[in-house]
Amino acid sequence: MQPNVTTLLNTITSPADVKRLPSEVLPQLATEIRTRMIETVSRSGGHLAPSLGTVELTLALCHVFDFPTDKVIWDVGHQSYAWKMVTGRNDAMETLRQFDGIRGFPFPAESPYDPAVGGHAGVALSTALGMAAARDLKQRNEHIIAVVGDASLTNGISLEALNAVRHTTERLILIINDNGMSISQNVGAFARMFARRISGIRYNRIRAAAEATGHHLRLSGLKSLYRALKGVIKPLLLRHRSAIFEDLGLRYMGPIDGHDIPALCEALRAAAEGHVPVVLHIATVKGKGYAPAERHPSKWHGVSPWATTPSNPPPTTSWSEAFGEELCALARQDERIVAVTAAMRDGTGLAPFFREFPNRAFDVGICEEHALTFAAGLAAAGFRPYVALYSTFAQRAVDCMMHDVCLAKLPVTLCLDRAGIVGADGPTHHGLYDIAMFRALPNLTFYAPTARDSLRQALQQALTDGTPTVIRYPRGAICDALPANPTVDTGKGPCLLALGDTAAWVAPLLETLPLPCFAVDRIKPLPAVLQTLKGRPLITLENAAKQAGFGSAIAEVHDAPVLILGWEDAFIPQGSDAELRRFGRLDTEALRAAISTFLQEHAE
Amino acid sequence: MQPNVTTLLNTITSPADVKRLPSEVLPQLATEIRTRMIETVSRSGGHLAPSLGTVELTLALCHVFDFPTDKVIWDVGHQSYAWKMVTGRNDAMETLRQFDGIRGFPFPAESPYDPAVGGHAGVALSTALGMAAARDLKQRNEHIIAVVGDASLTNGISLEALNAVRHTTERLILIINDNGMSISQNVGAFARMFARRISGIRYNRIRAAAEATGHHLRLSGLKSLYRALKGVIKPLLLRHRSAIFEDLGLRYMGPIDGHDIPALCEALRAAAEGHVPVVLHIATVKGKGYAPAERHPSKWHGVSPWATTPSNPPPTTSWSEAFGEELCALARQDERIVAVTAAMRDGTGLAPFFREFPNRAFDVGICEEHALTFAAGLAAAGFRPYVALYSTFAQRAVDCMMHDVCLAKLPVTLCLDRAGIVGADGPTHHGLYDIAMFRALPNLTFYAPTARDSLRQALQQALTDGTPTVIRYPRGAICDALPANPTVDTGKGPCLLALGDTAAWVAPLLETLPLPCFAVDRIKPLPAVLQTLKGRPLITLENAAKQAGFGSAIAEVHDAPVLILGWEDAFIPQGSDAELRRFGRLDTEALRAAISTFLQEHAE
Repeated sequence: MQPNVTTLLNTITSPADVKRLPSEVLPQLATEIRTRMIETVSRSGGHLAPSLGTVELTLALCHVFDFPTDKVIWDVGHQSYAWKMVTGRNDAMETLRQFDGIRGFPFPAESPYDPAVGGHAGVALSTALGMAAARDLKQRNEHIIAVVGDASLTNGISLEALNAVRHTTERLILIINDNGMSISQNVGAFARMFARRISGIRYNRIRAAAEATGHHLRLSGLKSLYRALKGVIKPLLLRHRSAIFEDLGLRYMGPIDGHDIPALCEALRAAAEGHVPVVLHIATVKGKGYAPAERHPSKWHGVSPWATTPSNPPPTTSWSEAFGEELCALARQDERIVAVTAAMRDGTGLAPFFREFPNRAFDVGICEEHALTFAAGLAAAGFRPYVALYSTFAQRAVDCMMHDVCLAKLPVTLCLDRAGIVGADGPTHHGLYDIAMFRALPNLTFYAPTARDSLRQALQQALTDGTPTVIRYPRGAICDALPANPTVDTGKGPCLLALGDTAAWVAPLLETLPLPCFAVDRIKPLPAVLQTLKGRPLITLENAAKQAGFGSAIAEVHDAPVLILGWEDAFIPQGSDAELRRFGRLDTEALRAAISTFLQEHAE
Repeated sequence: MQPNVTTLLNTITSPADVKRLPSEVLPQLATEIRTRMIETVSRSGGHLAPSLGTVELTLALCHVFDFPTDKVIWDVGHQSYAWKMVTGRNDAMETLRQFDGIRGFPFPAESPYDPAVGGHAGVALSTALGMAAARDLKQRNEHIIAVVGDASLTNGISLEALNAVRHTTERLILIINDNGMSISQNVGAFARMFARRISGIRYNRIRAAAEATGHHLRLSGLKSLYRALKGVIKPLLLRHRSAIFEDLGLRYMGPIDGHDIPALCEALRAAAEGHVPVVLHIATVKGKGYAPAERHPSKWHGVSPWATTPSNPPPTTSWSEAFGEELCALARQDERIVAVTAAMRDGTGLAPFFREFPNRAFDVGICEEHALTFAAGLAAAGFRPYVALYSTFAQRAVDCMMHDVCLAKLPVTLCLDRAGIVGADGPTHHGLYDIAMFRALPNLTFYAPTARDSLRQALQQALTDGTPTVIRYPRGAICDALPANPTVDTGKGPCLLALGDTAAWVAPLLETLPLPCFAVDRIKPLPAVLQTLKGRPLITLENAAKQAGFGSAIAEVHDAPVLILGWEDAFIPQGSDAELRRFGRLDTEALRAAISTFLQEHAE
């Protein structure tokens, strides 16, 4: 804490406090918020660069609107740290992304100022439209505002919602927070459209001058001025960027400098007065105000704590890195291999593949559905696509996997990174439901590798088989290989089947627990060892929801009792792996207790 | 068969045969195809109106391109009957949508002329982009063509793909088949954009004149002509309609009369010569050439056989109708109830709700993701949305259910129509995976009503509980109520649990099978009766995939053997309910045999 620097911030307990401040001191408040944010994230880790970009927008929103009567929905909470700090959670920011602490995303259960869950990209505009429709039905007047990053706007849900705006309501404010990049790099036509900024800046200067005058006009005068601007200046300067929104029935305003609080307040007021839905396009700098993050916004998008990290952490390879390396190795041998991802090329370890095989690598932006169906097209034409997505985001592509891949029996391999708990990103990001959602699909082979050799084998086997495949693996460090499985004894006693990465969880148990343990790396078809275990009580362990998961698949067919160990039927909070495993009774002690009880009940 | 009328059609065994025909006879071939199509569908049922609209387009495609080297991907096979008839399947059309017969949608396993599965709307452009990327990588030259209905274009995957076109390839032809309506009625900004047709027709006349000249020019001359047209005429006449595509980096051509074969051929040739992706906008009449279908295209979109249907079928109420009626009844009592659907207002039985409560009913078009997240917004603002989707299409909304509804614990009720086998629409449309995909989600209650009283109760209970709910029910006739379940005896013998509509399947068995049978209507939490059946062998039956389904949920927790009966791990073909149940060994005889065997193995 630096009390000298946060004099103003310490007086802010709600947006109303910001509203009461004279405009002149808002820049100082912005500076205090940035200082505190950098300090906090240096200890907690988190999405620093996106949230540094929205400090002024947050203050301008508070200055113009009345929250929580008015509602703002941040698309992907990466942008929302400043919002949390001015909505009564400043002190609690110390606990950001920690177990029992403030979440890294908007979350209604956390604050009345968070109207919706904001973990997955692209849903804010749909949610806002629902709330606007509700307001219109109730004949009320509050403002509904969605703040959407330019990258989120290319997601299918965003585009479905954009198409629906004019049909749904006459009053909605869509703020496009345009920082010119998604998690790594923006792609597609929308991105190009936003990139044409030169003419926009000229327009903005003219508009800014007009605004300065218009501010003193009465409402009707201001509207006339806008109409005049719209009729004369905009068509000349902004045809390309604005046409798409005008075609969609939305009034386009911008671009506005997203770090200029007076300009933002003016624009927000004008937007609030309109009787058509408004797109307010603001240009922000990702990482604004923190030089390292401004220079390398992608690196600083989501960061681990750097103030508390030991300077020389032990060198480890992550599952993501191993996946990228193994896929590159395979791709050197087989030209049919192509890689597809959806704005996760760094996160999924595919960056080296993109460098080595730029023509064979496709980043489609935050478009998980298109990613998978696009891959189906590549596969139908003779290629062998490996599609790398985070497990939680792949939930969007379940139908594409069924309809476009499995039904056509195409050689597409869906590689699910961050399958299992993911730590500080919490319940929106844990990858616990992929087994349930995918394992019922016919024609599918489903792997959960136990270590690097097993991952390599799954990637190779998918290539050999040429049929629909899913491979799931967790966040975190990979080991090269596990000890060989025991040979099946001739007894009738219980055995343990540890799926994928949980094989490492049970290692500390094996010295004291008297039962054979098999590390298994396949969910579908069921692991071969199962045939040799007929009639024996089984314990299954998985880093996934218990319901409809791996243990469930065993219980469907096995002819003796099965104890299913995995994540219980509840959303799992954020926290370290150790905290979460303790919370979910999947830590070593709890596993030992559960297994011991089962062994007593089912002694040979 | 009317041999006089199908002289030409009978000579066509492949698109090459069409290509060889002189242009002048193509209209006659179109007439023959229509006659035969109407005759076939009158016996088989099917999607008549959409396929009547694309006869000329099909012939023009065959005349200009070289299939199967070139590829055409029909988005939603509703449009593809003429295509099937000219690609070697004319004789087989007698078996359209019948068990072991020709499918109602494009299907690669059926023909080398069907490059992709075409059952779910919106995937053609993504698939085509994958194939175009593959072609570019292989440095080949074939043409890739996607034919997308105007309604499919508003789907999220289509829009994701539209955004990606220019980034992915320089050569692709997207044909927008604009008949001005989706299954019932088109919604949203894209639809309005297409509705502005007057200026377009003027443009088309000018262009047609230019084309007539340009056709005789060499390629470079033609390109200059196009540039001139683009620079002068188009901006004046077509700014609004074309701007969006030009912004997206696609060359816009059209609108062309989709029933004018020479105009279509000209336009397709011009599109094929370009070196930028082209959008060819054609205007067609749904139901073209069959007066009843032209007058009532929505009614004739998908039809049951009318040549073979008895004139007075016994009056029955469908599950969909019952749902619509019960929801109306509930909505009269509770103003918070609103209904949402995604271009399925007739199919889901919501039409009466739309008539009675127009302000409280939302049809968002073919946008399942937006439908559910929009509903989440309505729910967060105090309403009680009931979202009616077909089970198979709800596969697109799994992530929205998890992230926007269940995690926020909002009172959204997802009503899954056509859960279970759906008959003639076949494997793309069977609703067999919803239990697997949804039941692992925390905070969820999941019903499978057994009859109308049970459906009513589930709808009411969802309202009372105010928490995330899924209700699944099948296609077909509903009965008012089932006989009461037996009281649980004190024995230890096997019992049968029949989920939802399968309670009616087992009725014929009960007289001869000596076991208590319970009709159960809840998947999650598990039905209460399970508590009273501890230690007893159980048989479960469900109209869903066995993997990860209802029986699987029982097997996860039950302490005695469970025989799971349901659909095996394979895609289920098309056919009548009786044929499919026989195919899947779920007909009365097969059920009796399976149950008897289990009873012998597990006698009390």
